[in-house]
Amino acid sequence: MTPISKKIGIIGAGQLGRMMAMAGYPLGQKFAFCGNNNDEPSAMLGQMFIEKDCAIESLVDFADVITYESENTCVEQVREITKTVPVFPAEKSLFISQHRGREKILFGQLDIPCAPYQLVNSLDDLKKAVEEIGLPAILKTTTEGYDGKGQFVIKKTSQIALAWQKIGNRELILEGFIKFSRELSIIAVRNAENEHVYYPLVHNIHDDGILRYTIAPAQQIIDSVQETAEIYMQKLLDELNHVGVLALELFETDSGLIANEIAPRVHNSGHWTMEGAETSQFENHIRAITGMPLGSTKPKQEIAAMVNIIGTTGDINAVLSLPNTYLHLYDKEERAGRKLGHINLLADSAEDLFATLAKLEQFLPK
Amino acid sequence: MTPISKKIGIIGAGQLGRMMAMAGYPLGQKFAFCGNNNDEPSAMLGQMFIEKDCAIESLVDFADVITYESENTCVEQVREITKTVPVFPAEKSLFISQHRGREKILFGQLDIPCAPYQLVNSLDDLKKAVEEIGLPAILKTTTEGYDGKGQFVIKKTSQIALAWQKIGNRELILEGFIKFSRELSIIAVRNAENEHVYYPLVHNIHDDGILRYTIAPAQQIIDSVQETAEIYMQKLLDELNHVGVLALELFETDSGLIANEIAPRVHNSGHWTMEGAETSQFENHIRAITGMPLGSTKPKQEIAAMVNIIGTTGDINAVLSLPNTYLHLYDKEERAGRKLGHINLLADSAEDLFATLAKLEQFLPK
Repeated sequence: MTPISKKIGIIGAGQLGRMMAMAGYPLGQKFAFCGNNNDEPSAMLGQMFIEKDCAIESLVDFADVITYESENTCVEQVREITKTVPVFPAEKSLFISQHRGREKILFGQLDIPCAPYQLVNSLDDLKKAVEEIGLPAILKTTTEGYDGKGQFVIKKTSQIALAWQKIGNRELILEGFIKFSRELSIIAVRNAENEHVYYPLVHNIHDDGILRYTIAPAQQIIDSVQETAEIYMQKLLDELNHVGVLALELFETDSGLIANEIAPRVHNSGHWTMEGAETSQFENHIRAITGMPLGSTKPKQEIAAMVNIIGTTGDINAVLSLPNTYLHLYDKEERAGRKLGHINLLADSAEDLFATLAKLEQFLPK
Repeated sequence: MTPISKKIGIIGAGQLGRMMAMAGYPLGQKFAFCGNNNDEPSAMLGQMFIEKDCAIESLVDFADVITYESENTCVEQVREITKTVPVFPAEKSLFISQHRGREKILFGQLDIPCAPYQLVNSLDDLKKAVEEIGLPAILKTTTEGYDGKGQFVIKKTSQIALAWQKIGNRELILEGFIKFSRELSIIAVRNAENEHVYYPLVHNIHDDGILRYTIAPAQQIIDSVQETAEIYMQKLLDELNHVGVLALELFETDSGLIANEIAPRVHNSGHWTMEGAETSQFENHIRAITGMPLGSTKPKQEIAAMVNIIGTTGDINAVLSLPNTYLHLYDKEERAGRKLGHINLLADSAEDLFATLAKLEQFLPK
């Protein structure tokens, strides 16, 4: 193997592992995954250890460095692994980002604006929190929510009991409703040599809680807003001593950017970087965790879009025939609401981009 | 798996298989390889069947369609496999391209200019051939030569016996010396629905018989020359009923393009297409053999270069820090003369390209 090669173990074997591996092989790296079964998206792209008592041990034996696909990776497990082999991002990034309360506390410490919030452990707590924060407000599980799951928008006091019944009986957080014009996100990367790089802010369009498409860069963002987002990211990366990709979801409001949540991993809103930026988020993550210099985050063209393929694969030949359009399937069975792949498209003008986007109507929300 | 997924078996497990697989996974395809050992470049990128009596049978069991890395793949084996599962490119392309004499006959049949030649089976044959063709001339093995191996340039009659001794005692071909300004190549793709696409002519710079770098598109090519090359390719693709990528090496001379040889596979001179064209040669090969529509061959920027990494990996961090520059390592042990990887770079002008190329001096021939 090439002298610079490192063996990378990934906890998880979904599409993020798959795309990390495909970005890392050209750098000379090798990959293994710890997953649930041999039908997962990463299964053919490296050595596969199937989840059972010794799978993590096998991954640790294999790896020079370990990373993960999900912010729900077990913190205790990561702490244990770290005694033998480095894990990036390290325990602290994981511990904070898997709990909405801890995220909010960190935002507060770093003077990063976020929604008002209260932690809620009972129906009584919830009633008090509503009085404090006012309505409408969003009740969320503190952990494990994704793609809009584990959330309830409380519009009037009569819904409080129902909200508690639906997602309660566990720790929740009530967040004040933010009136926002757009949902944005920013992806940044830091390596152990303290290099930082930032991708431009992107605009994410959700439907039913699931990211449907991203416009990159987000249009009409003035320089000072991008700078603000980068300052927030720099504070977060440094405070967490974060190595790898970190994603931050933000609301764009009349009073500026409001932080929503972080993810200590490659992020769906960064998939456009695969063809859209000089170095993809996947490659920069692999570079960061293996001690390589980070690559340029410069967009390759004026504007790009990323469209998720959700539920059914659809008419793929129509995609393959479009100019400057790039298909990424994850080799997953069709199932309602499931992310099966994404399509990247690039253009030299917003007009051209939206003209091509219109031809991808089958993949866009109604 | 995605409904459109096909299982692709690749005979061979080197860097070409590796890059075909990485281009095919995003299309939803799955891969297996028949190779020599688990350290080969493709070994981690799919199922691996190690060469022994039953490896090909296992590959056939796995695959919906089979392709190969080398024009030296056994024709009889391909004929046998084709009884069970389709092989693309099919037997005829392989049969012709693995023998320099058959190639020349085909060029003749299709009115594609090539060097004068004589087949040679003895020292006597060689003497007669030299009289016929004149000197200087190049003596080559009819089969299996690559990267300049199995060749002898005869400059004067006193070298005839030495040449025969060095590479003879097998079937040879003597080719008239072509006075050329540049070595060019063109890559074309055809699918079973008879779609044809062509990449632009590129300029290949060899050293000691090994391709060192490619400039794409070749500069100062007038439209009619590109058209001529495409016409040659169309004739070849159609005559061979070829499905997949076909590469044609050409000499640029004062009297026009002269065909040198074909390769029924993805080709080193097409590696620039990975970031340099809207659809890479690898992706278009996979599209062609799986019945998908072919993708655009349009270059993404004004000019690109591909630089082979030969023998030693070198200072990779210097490569990773260059803008618009893309590393592709093959995970091979260092060894003199061995292709270990390549670097693609793109630019908006030849001036910018050559400025970056100058920074890759360590990889360029002296």
